[in-house]
Amino acid sequence: MRAIDIIVAKRDGRELTREEIEFFIRGFTLGEIPDYQAAAWAMAVLLNGMTPRETTDLTLAMAHSGAVLDLSDVVDIAVDKHSSGGVGDKTTLVVLPLVAACGLPVGKMSGRGLGFSGGTLDKMESIPGYRCDLTTDEFKRQLKKVGIVLTGQSLDLAPADGKLYALRDVTGTVQSVPLIASSIMSKKIAGGAHAIVLDVKVGLGAFMQTLDEARTLAGLMVDIGNLAGRKVVALLSDMNQPLGHAVGNALEVREAIDTLHGGGPADFREHCLQVAAHMLVQGRCCPDLESARYAAEATIASGAAFEKFRALVRAQGGDVSYVDDPDRLPRASIIEVIPALRSGWLAEVNARTIGEAAVSLGAGRAKKGDPIDHAVGFVIHKKVGERVEQGEPLLTIHANDRGKQAEIRRMAQSAVEFSESPVRPLPLFYE
Amino acid sequence: MRAIDIIVAKRDGRELTREEIEFFIRGFTLGEIPDYQAAAWAMAVLLNGMTPRETTDLTLAMAHSGAVLDLSDVVDIAVDKHSSGGVGDKTTLVVLPLVAACGLPVGKMSGRGLGFSGGTLDKMESIPGYRCDLTTDEFKRQLKKVGIVLTGQSLDLAPADGKLYALRDVTGTVQSVPLIASSIMSKKIAGGAHAIVLDVKVGLGAFMQTLDEARTLAGLMVDIGNLAGRKVVALLSDMNQPLGHAVGNALEVREAIDTLHGGGPADFREHCLQVAAHMLVQGRCCPDLESARYAAEATIASGAAFEKFRALVRAQGGDVSYVDDPDRLPRASIIEVIPALRSGWLAEVNARTIGEAAVSLGAGRAKKGDPIDHAVGFVIHKKVGERVEQGEPLLTIHANDRGKQAEIRRMAQSAVEFSESPVRPLPLFYE
Repeated sequence: MRAIDIIVAKRDGRELTREEIEFFIRGFTLGEIPDYQAAAWAMAVLLNGMTPRETTDLTLAMAHSGAVLDLSDVVDIAVDKHSSGGVGDKTTLVVLPLVAACGLPVGKMSGRGLGFSGGTLDKMESIPGYRCDLTTDEFKRQLKKVGIVLTGQSLDLAPADGKLYALRDVTGTVQSVPLIASSIMSKKIAGGAHAIVLDVKVGLGAFMQTLDEARTLAGLMVDIGNLAGRKVVALLSDMNQPLGHAVGNALEVREAIDTLHGGGPADFREHCLQVAAHMLVQGRCCPDLESARYAAEATIASGAAFEKFRALVRAQGGDVSYVDDPDRLPRASIIEVIPALRSGWLAEVNARTIGEAAVSLGAGRAKKGDPIDHAVGFVIHKKVGERVEQGEPLLTIHANDRGKQAEIRRMAQSAVEFSESPVRPLPLFYE
Repeated sequence: MRAIDIIVAKRDGRELTREEIEFFIRGFTLGEIPDYQAAAWAMAVLLNGMTPRETTDLTLAMAHSGAVLDLSDVVDIAVDKHSSGGVGDKTTLVVLPLVAACGLPVGKMSGRGLGFSGGTLDKMESIPGYRCDLTTDEFKRQLKKVGIVLTGQSLDLAPADGKLYALRDVTGTVQSVPLIASSIMSKKIAGGAHAIVLDVKVGLGAFMQTLDEARTLAGLMVDIGNLAGRKVVALLSDMNQPLGHAVGNALEVREAIDTLHGGGPADFREHCLQVAAHMLVQGRCCPDLESARYAAEATIASGAAFEKFRALVRAQGGDVSYVDDPDRLPRASIIEVIPALRSGWLAEVNARTIGEAAVSLGAGRAKKGDPIDHAVGFVIHKKVGERVEQGEPLLTIHANDRGKQAEIRRMAQSAVEFSESPVRPLPLFYE
């Protein structure tokens, strides 16, 4: 078998065999197939597509390119979740404690933010001392002992995916549904997941802009899961406006803690309860979604969910005094409330524009490796569909750079649109 | 400007600007744009195509990526020729002396054979001492003094093309009409050509298998020439059966020398006269094709063409005693005449099969850098359309490896097909 024949086959639109895909991924991981051949192949995949069968074989080849975590001695059914990323998406910070507090051990490997989209690890690192670099041994030990883990992707898992993703990033081959789906699913499978809840975001602030695209990605990941013998459920949720009110790392941690205490924005709380319920059903902790949701709500009321979050932070070296008193979390030096310039119904809070403004504030990264400022961000006080009166607080900017304030104010205001007539609220979930 | 944006633009089917193409080729030549980005870009070009304007800009960017030969102090109109390659195509060995003997100085940089297709340099190196590595200074000096040059591609000329071609070869991106056309034309323009005669081969033994493909390639190269201010004429000629009778390096040199002496196969002689006539008209040496053809024929009759070939060999260090007595050229140890197994009209002599059998004999290369045996090859005694009687000599194998003889015999026989009813001869030229 030769790499070039596999490139030519995909170039000519042929379906690759499992053996060809395994040969290619193994050779690429070992460095026997050079980057330039993998780049040409990735472009051919992007332009000519892959069948679900090919995508599944690619997923499994990447999942098995390194160590594969075996969690069966810790938990009967290891349940993982994945969000396709968005603005204000701090769901994991609440869902993991909810699920763990119900008695289902849950460990998750998350990523960092890039571009307009935030990252769970960056949020957790607002808490001084919190470690995101657990080894797989530490991961398993903590999952067994504490029942909850939230760390970074281990480098031993799916190294082919890490290498291919880095190459795709610089060769214009990120935006391929089969390559996105196999990248996500290979990490989940290598991480030992038996069941996966996918939260596919759709809208202005998501990678998938239309419901059709999101449905295609979700459908493909469900197909991969089924073909690979994993239980997968996919939710399609709105990302036209930011989720909850807070956007920015420490601000989002505060909002997550509020939510664990029974407060927090209604949309965000509802979102977390639904995701948690699906995980509990998948993990056979609860017989149906209704009872699962009830169980999850009960962990908020009892304080068990908040205790799990505390235990998580403590286990990973974080200073729990910041969790107990979120006012200690990093705070910005400039806090400016922007009032509504007119009255009306809120018609749009463009999540993408808010996400990009957050990058300008320093809350996110324009490119990999950029430092971030955990303190800065936005709190958006109103949701689409709400009535707003002129002069009412619309959003609050948390900033540390006075020189940029005018530009940030202009960006934030441009994200918002009003209507003279009533506007229907955006749905939380589409499907 | 960033390389990735140019890759993404081509991925999404956008037409690239001249500035984008120049930026990409300059960066790639300097090594600032890595191979993996160029590979992804080449695959996007292959799958999404390029307009004639883009292809012309690519051609000129590659032509100007290194030194550009200026021949205007040697010849008013520098005329070059290019054949797209085939089996038994020794045309250059005859055409260059014909044209030079008519008084038009002509210098050409040629290539080596790869796969089923032979290479002019390999043929010339059948003559002991013949040098194919002239510097550009030696090239110009010899063109001025002797009026004829036939050497290898100089590394100073169009280095971007050399680098891109090597990358395309290992990334499945050779078979792209815009990339093939720009590769050919960039070398010709960097070589100082003011006018170019393109001999595009079509058929079983050519890279272009159908008349449509060949027409597309020829049309694009003519467009590039016109847009770049060069005079270009393209001929489409048959490569279903080998050109002439001889296939194999020394055998072809012998056939070329026979032709220069007024003998040689009728089809090959006619082919050479037509190509030479077009070059003479383009070089304003003759007013029209008819007079040009007459002039070229006259140089055979007078012995002037053969003298030019001798002068060429001498100038480049070759031993002219081999030209004067071609029986001294390398000879194979096994010479086996294969008779026709049946009577009938010859319906096919598959040039591709013959070319591949020649590689098996050692006359060509399976991969770059393989050594070749100048002595071996085939002489095919009949052309498609001729009547052949059972037992008549059909072809002669010239071989040096007795162990392979049975396999070679089988391959050669499988290339030949007979018909019970008369068959029309193949045309020499299609357009």
